[in-house]
Amino acid sequence: MSNSEVENTTKQEKISAYAAIGVGQALQSYEYIPKELGSLEIEIAISHCGICHSDLHLIKNDWSVSLYPLVPGHEIIGTVARIGSAVGNLRVGQRVGVGWFAGACFECEMCRLGEENLCAAAQATCVGREGGYATRVRVDFRFAFLIPDSLPSEYAAPLLCAGITVFAPLHRHGLNKATRLGVVGIGGLGHLALQYGHTMGCHVTAFSSSAAKAEEAKRLGADEFVDTSPKGAVAGRANTCDFLLSTVPADLPWGDYVNVLRPNGRLCIVGAPANDLKLSAFPLIVGQKSVVGSTVGSNSEMRQMLAFSAQHNVRPQIEMFSMPEVNQALERLRQNQLRYRAVLANQ
Amino acid sequence: MSNSEVENTTKQEKISAYAAIGVGQALQSYEYIPKELGSLEIEIAISHCGICHSDLHLIKNDWSVSLYPLVPGHEIIGTVARIGSAVGNLRVGQRVGVGWFAGACFECEMCRLGEENLCAAAQATCVGREGGYATRVRVDFRFAFLIPDSLPSEYAAPLLCAGITVFAPLHRHGLNKATRLGVVGIGGLGHLALQYGHTMGCHVTAFSSSAAKAEEAKRLGADEFVDTSPKGAVAGRANTCDFLLSTVPADLPWGDYVNVLRPNGRLCIVGAPANDLKLSAFPLIVGQKSVVGSTVGSNSEMRQMLAFSAQHNVRPQIEMFSMPEVNQALERLRQNQLRYRAVLANQ
Repeated sequence: MSNSEVENTTKQEKISAYAAIGVGQALQSYEYIPKELGSLEIEIAISHCGICHSDLHLIKNDWSVSLYPLVPGHEIIGTVARIGSAVGNLRVGQRVGVGWFAGACFECEMCRLGEENLCAAAQATCVGREGGYATRVRVDFRFAFLIPDSLPSEYAAPLLCAGITVFAPLHRHGLNKATRLGVVGIGGLGHLALQYGHTMGCHVTAFSSSAAKAEEAKRLGADEFVDTSPKGAVAGRANTCDFLLSTVPADLPWGDYVNVLRPNGRLCIVGAPANDLKLSAFPLIVGQKSVVGSTVGSNSEMRQMLAFSAQHNVRPQIEMFSMPEVNQALERLRQNQLRYRAVLANQ
Repeated sequence: MSNSEVENTTKQEKISAYAAIGVGQALQSYEYIPKELGSLEIEIAISHCGICHSDLHLIKNDWSVSLYPLVPGHEIIGTVARIGSAVGNLRVGQRVGVGWFAGACFECEMCRLGEENLCAAAQATCVGREGGYATRVRVDFRFAFLIPDSLPSEYAAPLLCAGITVFAPLHRHGLNKATRLGVVGIGGLGHLALQYGHTMGCHVTAFSSSAAKAEEAKRLGADEFVDTSPKGAVAGRANTCDFLLSTVPADLPWGDYVNVLRPNGRLCIVGAPANDLKLSAFPLIVGQKSVVGSTVGSNSEMRQMLAFSAQHNVRPQIEMFSMPEVNQALERLRQNQLRYRAVLANQ
């Protein structure tokens, strides 16, 4: 089927999905008719969609941005099924992935700098639009990324959000063989960060309140494991890391972690705690340390992450569910039982 | 007089100084006999010494590190009077300056990286040793910096601490003509930061609670002036700066200033507030913003600052006092009346 034929088949067919009909509700079967395919859009026939903790937040409207019925899902893998008239570089049948973002203005300074993830008008894949817990999805073609052949779809899916969220800051801040990296929290994000950090050559220390994860953390690339539960455990690691990646959306003992940093060290936060950070300025000043945020990644970083993951065999540890099992998967996530990422598969 | 002659004149002569005999006391005349000149030390005959807000903190033992009698002073200009036997690159009669630091280990990783200001064993000029409110001072020769000929001593003095404290972070973070710089607080540090930022080509915005400083701020290099007193004034400048330098040791509306930053923006703190910073992680994450500290500067940055200041005619605005007028000068600083830096001169 050529592109011109494809462009002529833009008739609107129902898309089957799973949606929360109201705030916090269990997902249920839901069908919707998409808007006409835009000239810069593609339609993707979804094979897999990962489940991210952000989906839970959206279902509960924790961020006051959710619209209902809400179809979650922003770790999407599928094949290109339809192509808008102005889409140049994709062909029907190609395997692509979509992450948190599905659109941006491409006109602002951030977009022109190639930092689409910082565009004030960036559109999230499942905020105010239907996401990937579905048979199909439509997005701006510039937010659909070709998946390297060697990455199986079920493993590629979680990379689109969990993977990029931890790869991008490690890559952007230039981590290398001289870096002593600490990863705080070994879950959906942290278990990938251990692999990326190890592959980048860093000396990697895992910080986790689950002592039971020690062996697994080392298998995933950690050189050291710190059980953070005993009083003083974090404080006892003062001055041991150049870069700390905090992946847990919890109120950590921030002062202790700042002290874990060596001079010029950076504490990078990718998991937002509910409460304000409380930090003494003094150790930041005398150690020239920084606290920095990072949000998923740019489109360029996404392509680099996928290539890096394929080349170095970075893969999430996943639990598979069929799409109709979505509520079971969400419940395991709620109960903090997933090791470490759930992936939904269409049959 | 040759160096070998100098080495033979290491007899210990009394040094006249001004000291706080106890916590928070007014300074009074004080004489001490220095320890024997170390092989790596020089003795400097002091012509000028700037007064820094840190001297007030030390006098009051605010940081619990003060030893009494306490001779403050760490913005020292003078001429080399004596030279230790292992000092290679200085000659008697050369004009040099000394800032916050007077020694470091020169063996740790930070020292070997040329970041002596981050050495855990770095020694402050007037903490546990006598500082520059005196006729003479002895320091490790590696912390004595040649002063460019075109810099008058009274103007050079405040550069050794106030100057380096604001120059180093602007230089280290690569500020340039594309940078929208905000300087928070127009005092001893801020009035120099305006000049450095302007000279580096930045678009400079001054943030001050003193509307009366608007005209002066613009004369010093500010393109814009924000009177921060009215409610909402800072919040109204959201998304306008790439880099904010906070020079005031006060509890600022941190959330508002984080919002003043554009994506990827950095809030650099060089003035330590008494209370913890309270910051929401969310805007740091979604804007990839950072909060970073900076502490004076390395020896290399010190030399670059002096050369830059001489080349581009960056000069502090000063008020002159004779050394015996030290308590009057300190009182003007306490009352926040100095415009903008006091300098003591020996007759």
